[in-house]
Amino acid sequence: MDRSIGFVETKFFHLKEPLLLESGEVLKNVRIAYETYGTLNKEKTNAILICHAFSGDAHAAGWHKGDKKPGWWDEMIGPGKAFDTDKYFVICSNVIGGCMGSTGPSSINPETQKPYALSFPIITIGDMVQAQRKLMEHLGIEKLLSVCGGSMGGMQALEWAVNHPEKVKSVIPIATTIKHSPQQIAFDEVGRQAIMADPNWQGGNYYGKEIPAKGLALARMIGHITYMSDKSMEKKFGRQIKDETKKYKFGELFEVESYLHYRGDNFVKRFDANSYLYITKAMDLYDAGRGCPFHKVLEGKNVKFLVIAFRSDWLYPIYQSQEIVKACKIAGLEATFCIIDSTYGHDAFLLEIDEESHLIKHFLKKVFEGKL
Amino acid sequence: MDRSIGFVETKFFHLKEPLLLESGEVLKNVRIAYETYGTLNKEKTNAILICHAFSGDAHAAGWHKGDKKPGWWDEMIGPGKAFDTDKYFVICSNVIGGCMGSTGPSSINPETQKPYALSFPIITIGDMVQAQRKLMEHLGIEKLLSVCGGSMGGMQALEWAVNHPEKVKSVIPIATTIKHSPQQIAFDEVGRQAIMADPNWQGGNYYGKEIPAKGLALARMIGHITYMSDKSMEKKFGRQIKDETKKYKFGELFEVESYLHYRGDNFVKRFDANSYLYITKAMDLYDAGRGCPFHKVLEGKNVKFLVIAFRSDWLYPIYQSQEIVKACKIAGLEATFCIIDSTYGHDAFLLEIDEESHLIKHFLKKVFEGKL
Repeated sequence: MDRSIGFVETKFFHLKEPLLLESGEVLKNVRIAYETYGTLNKEKTNAILICHAFSGDAHAAGWHKGDKKPGWWDEMIGPGKAFDTDKYFVICSNVIGGCMGSTGPSSINPETQKPYALSFPIITIGDMVQAQRKLMEHLGIEKLLSVCGGSMGGMQALEWAVNHPEKVKSVIPIATTIKHSPQQIAFDEVGRQAIMADPNWQGGNYYGKEIPAKGLALARMIGHITYMSDKSMEKKFGRQIKDETKKYKFGELFEVESYLHYRGDNFVKRFDANSYLYITKAMDLYDAGRGCPFHKVLEGKNVKFLVIAFRSDWLYPIYQSQEIVKACKIAGLEATFCIIDSTYGHDAFLLEIDEESHLIKHFLKKVFEGKL
Repeated sequence: MDRSIGFVETKFFHLKEPLLLESGEVLKNVRIAYETYGTLNKEKTNAILICHAFSGDAHAAGWHKGDKKPGWWDEMIGPGKAFDTDKYFVICSNVIGGCMGSTGPSSINPETQKPYALSFPIITIGDMVQAQRKLMEHLGIEKLLSVCGGSMGGMQALEWAVNHPEKVKSVIPIATTIKHSPQQIAFDEVGRQAIMADPNWQGGNYYGKEIPAKGLALARMIGHITYMSDKSMEKKFGRQIKDETKKYKFGELFEVESYLHYRGDNFVKRFDANSYLYITKAMDLYDAGRGCPFHKVLEGKNVKFLVIAFRSDWLYPIYQSQEIVKACKIAGLEATFCIIDSTYGHDAFLLEIDEESHLIKHFLKKVFEGKL
């Protein structure tokens, strides 16, 4: 636990008011799971919000008692790390629609006293951010020093810049996009179809019964292929075969197959299938420009950008990050763009700790000291 | 039907001897569906074998009576076309393991009088080519002028060069590879899992009952994403929405989603789910070098290569074609390499007719005239 924030606990915040969603629907009794690391300074100017990706949660750093591994971005958050908890107050909350403590389709609908399932309203990235904003108000934070996230977390960072620019000094969108391309939508859709085709899915009403495990595992397997790169898979697995005697049989033969099955089966233990549907839908619907060119919605906003992309990321290709930077420049906003030469594919945002740390540490220092 | 070969019919050839497979198993009563276009010359030196891709069939060119569209490579095969039927005798046969007329898992097992289903032996690209070789013998063809194919068809072309070099003057492997990468295996495996997870699959014993339509459609949807490119999808679909009022509902919203569903549902009408399993398995198992560096198995072989790859093909990336060419050069074989600047992704081999035609027409002429 060297340089670790140590033991942490997930807290819960209950919104007093119902949340008016982008769809026009209203979500009542909203609960947000969150964690905080470090201390908010007296001036309340050192708060940083970390936004998790699709399947992440509020447990970004430190250790839960009894756990075998720390939070999902522990290497980035802690004393002396990129998000230095000796200097900054770091917050991470689980998105609404999720299944890691915040209100989502597996939550109890107060009106029926049963899990929402598909009666849960469609939520958007904008709604997730609105809920985060309520949490910031609850924590007494007037203006965030920064909002940072990779993948779907990066979309939330963009949303803060576009729709709550007075509440955030800077954003760090990593390996993300202004809006999903048809290829990204297509991969999400086959994942959703895998779940919905599972007879256990039952139109979403599987709570308390057998879950759509096969469908959810399959969706995750598809996802995992898109998170890696051709090169990283070649390095990790090659054409390694576990048991040559099974060559002329169906079943897991190549190590890459066993790996995908393992990841799929593990995912089922921790993730709710309906949340998979809701969160991928939110990503597909997202358009940071709301139909307008992105630079138009940035005009006149005083938010600094650090945009990071990864060479081998083919799910959120570099050109999508370039579009963010270009829009910033057109709108006259400060924006730094860095491409990290990684072979890890989209997963790189969780793995390229050293380079990301350097970039983020210096960027945050400048923003904090008002030098940018 | 201008420049068309006109009406054609699929013919059937029944092997007299059982086929000894690479796995050591024996396949009896093998039937091969095939078509021919043009006329075999007296010297029998103008025969070209076309090998189809994963879901293709023997009907490569011309029209079947009553059909609304011609064979799958009709733009390439016919009078004056790349494979000029005024000059060459063109043959295309359905692979064994398939479901388009040749013996496969949906065929009747002579020993049980029931469909094979999963009692069908695992077949390999080598086995497919062996069956093709028997067909060539039946047609009285001692040596092929060329063997050409895209994707899995290209693997068969490589297999002819490696294992039957005395029977072929040249090969034209297009958008293909010496062996599948772990990424290619991974995509095949999720397709297979989609089928096997469908409760109608029933361990493969669905013949005469409800077929695993959802699983097979899903497998095809996944496949289709990999056949296109990010750019071609952007051009074709963008973020087009059919019905804005359905924005906050689950179901097909974006046009790319509707397209994938349409392609998936159509595929189910013409393809057998078990053949999907067998053929993808054959591709994954294939290694043209049989564990050795590819140039080693090419040494001393007198086969000319024309290798074609496509810029935006990320399923069979250019580097895989480069590996073929490099091995040829190391082994001292004639090899021409062309990259076509297409945005169509892997599908390009079916779509970039003009450039492919030029390349192939001139290559075949040189080989035919002994000038290469």
